Amino acid sequence: MSQPINIAVIGATSNVGEALVELLEEREFPVQDLHLLASSESAGQSLSFRGRQVRVRSLDAFDFAQVQLAFFAAGAEVTRTCRERVLAAGCSLIDLSAALSLDQAPCVLPERGAEGLPALTRPWCVSAPTPSAVACALVLATLKPVLQPQRLQVTAMLSISTLGRSGVQELARQTAELLNGRPLESKTVDRQIAFNLLAQVGAVDDQGHAQLEVRLAAELQQLLGLPALPVAATCALVPVFFGDSLAVGVQSGADIDVLAVQQLLEAEQGIELVEAGDYPTAVGDAVGQDQVYVGRVRRGVSDPRQLNLWIASDNVRKGAALNAVQIAELLIKHYL
Amino acid sequence: MSQPINIAVIGATSNVGEALVELLEEREFPVQDLHLLASSESAGQSLSFRGRQVRVRSLDAFDFAQVQLAFFAAGAEVTRTCRERVLAAGCSLIDLSAALSLDQAPCVLPERGAEGLPALTRPWCVSAPTPSAVACALVLATLKPVLQPQRLQVTAMLSISTLGRSGVQELARQTAELLNGRPLESKTVDRQIAFNLLAQVGAVDDQGHAQLEVRLAAELQQLLGLPALPVAATCALVPVFFGDSLAVGVQSGADIDVLAVQQLLEAEQGIELVEAGDYPTAVGDAVGQDQVYVGRVRRGVSDPRQLNLWIASDNVRKGAALNAVQIAELLIKHYL
Repeated sequence: MSQPINIAVIGATSNVGEALVELLEEREFPVQDLHLLASSESAGQSLSFRGRQVRVRSLDAFDFAQVQLAFFAAGAEVTRTCRERVLAAGCSLIDLSAALSLDQAPCVLPERGAEGLPALTRPWCVSAPTPSAVACALVLATLKPVLQPQRLQVTAMLSISTLGRSGVQELARQTAELLNGRPLESKTVDRQIAFNLLAQVGAVDDQGHAQLEVRLAAELQQLLGLPALPVAATCALVPVFFGDSLAVGVQSGADIDVLAVQQLLEAEQGIELVEAGDYPTAVGDAVGQDQVYVGRVRRGVSDPRQLNLWIASDNVRKGAALNAVQIAELLIKHYL
Repeated sequence: MSQPINIAVIGATSNVGEALVELLEEREFPVQDLHLLASSESAGQSLSFRGRQVRVRSLDAFDFAQVQLAFFAAGAEVTRTCRERVLAAGCSLIDLSAALSLDQAPCVLPERGAEGLPALTRPWCVSAPTPSAVACALVLATLKPVLQPQRLQVTAMLSISTLGRSGVQELARQTAELLNGRPLESKTVDRQIAFNLLAQVGAVDDQGHAQLEVRLAAELQQLLGLPALPVAATCALVPVFFGDSLAVGVQSGADIDVLAVQQLLEAEQGIELVEAGDYPTAVGDAVGQDQVYVGRVRRGVSDPRQLNLWIASDNVRKGAALNAVQIAELLIKHYL
């Protein structure tokens, strides 16, 4: 593999940050020195890496000239604040916080390999797509030979870990309060998420779209190389701790050949196709796995040009951390 | 109001059966005698109606010549077994179990009034649409003046009460087991529903469609008077006790006028429109209410011909019981 490099992980104590550190070890990523960084409140904790404890240090004083590559897995504000400082120090950057525009930081689907790579010069700056975009784009890119997408509709049923650790704690706390007949208090989300669905993640723009939906549409268009593809996206929060579920409908220019679709999905290494009759679930199948699970492959009930799929994916592991590491593996081969 | 009639409620001890009895009283339905019927196991219980306790009797020995109208809110098998016997006795029938084909028993959307009524002769036999079809058809019928539907895509996120009382008990039991760290045992559903989504309700046909999805599509086509409308439907079970959530996308023949859509929804009595920025939820808004809640009214993220909506509705009350009573109110005016 490539020459070892020095790496920084920002937001190391977040769900995604911890998963990143695990995966850098598990995949034997060529790390020379690993620097774990976080806000000053989280500094002082430590994470295990290759059998030793690495202390998490404060981001503020860190000199990015010491590292060649930084993963940003903290909030969007952190990436925006640090971006110039990181690039000025000659360090390349993979952002997992959807903080940067896709012009500033194009997004990359590692499974497409060199084919899908944008032109980059060092130090480069790329976006790891949002977890739903990763899962959906991987499936649709795989189906490119047999689909002529005219329109795309995605209902993304996102687990509460989309909001990070505080979201996970909120669902657990609300559920326990309800089961114990105690009055419900909402903190991280603005209303009851236990045994309920929330139709909207964050604020909406004047067109009624949540930022996550706009981002998902733009990322899918870029990753699929179809900048004019009409995309309708609904992102909702569901009372699930980990693992996203997507109901995806693609309207194609011709009747769907379900068998050909199944064969392509079966052949792609990053996808686990669940046979007809059975179906994948976020918790039962996808969580903890590197693959994206696909099932319920069928046409529309009365629409032969519509392909419908159910996708389940681990939003923290495959959707964020693994995908970012796979992007890094691809990019250091070509650009570092 | 009309002349009082004798009524039978079959499946009186189910969630929907109990709600039916409540609503017959609440809406001052012209009931002379009320007969509550169920399987012989449930016979012997009693329900309150107009201040007295009405005993639930066994369906087997009941003579349907005593009543003019029967609501079937038990399983589909019960309706199929009894249908001939009921009609032969001169009793009309409203089926809430989706047991009969839409040719045998056309479905009715009461909000459309006499306009939407099929031609019927006494004793007649109609279907109350499935709860998701009720909510979705009411919204789309309201929007008929400003929509030219070319294609319809529905992701129905159904509460576990779709499976009846045993489903509700299963979600409560599984959740408690998981929170208490006990091993999980699945009974009513074949896997973990607590903190998880199930992508499929029941078995699928050789095209991969669940029966509920096929039914939903056919009902929508009939209720909207658009028998050739291409419909793609995904029905999933979510860890919510009561109240269904639907993400609906309609592709129209022309650009969507969001303001006109909002005005029509605002004007319809059976619909509560939630203003942009806010959004409705099943548990927080719809459950216990007669109205269907609609929010997140917007175009596709990059698709001006796509209308997107989020619908929340009480599947037991508005979706089933109230809707069936409203159908009865309409039909007895015209056909009884």
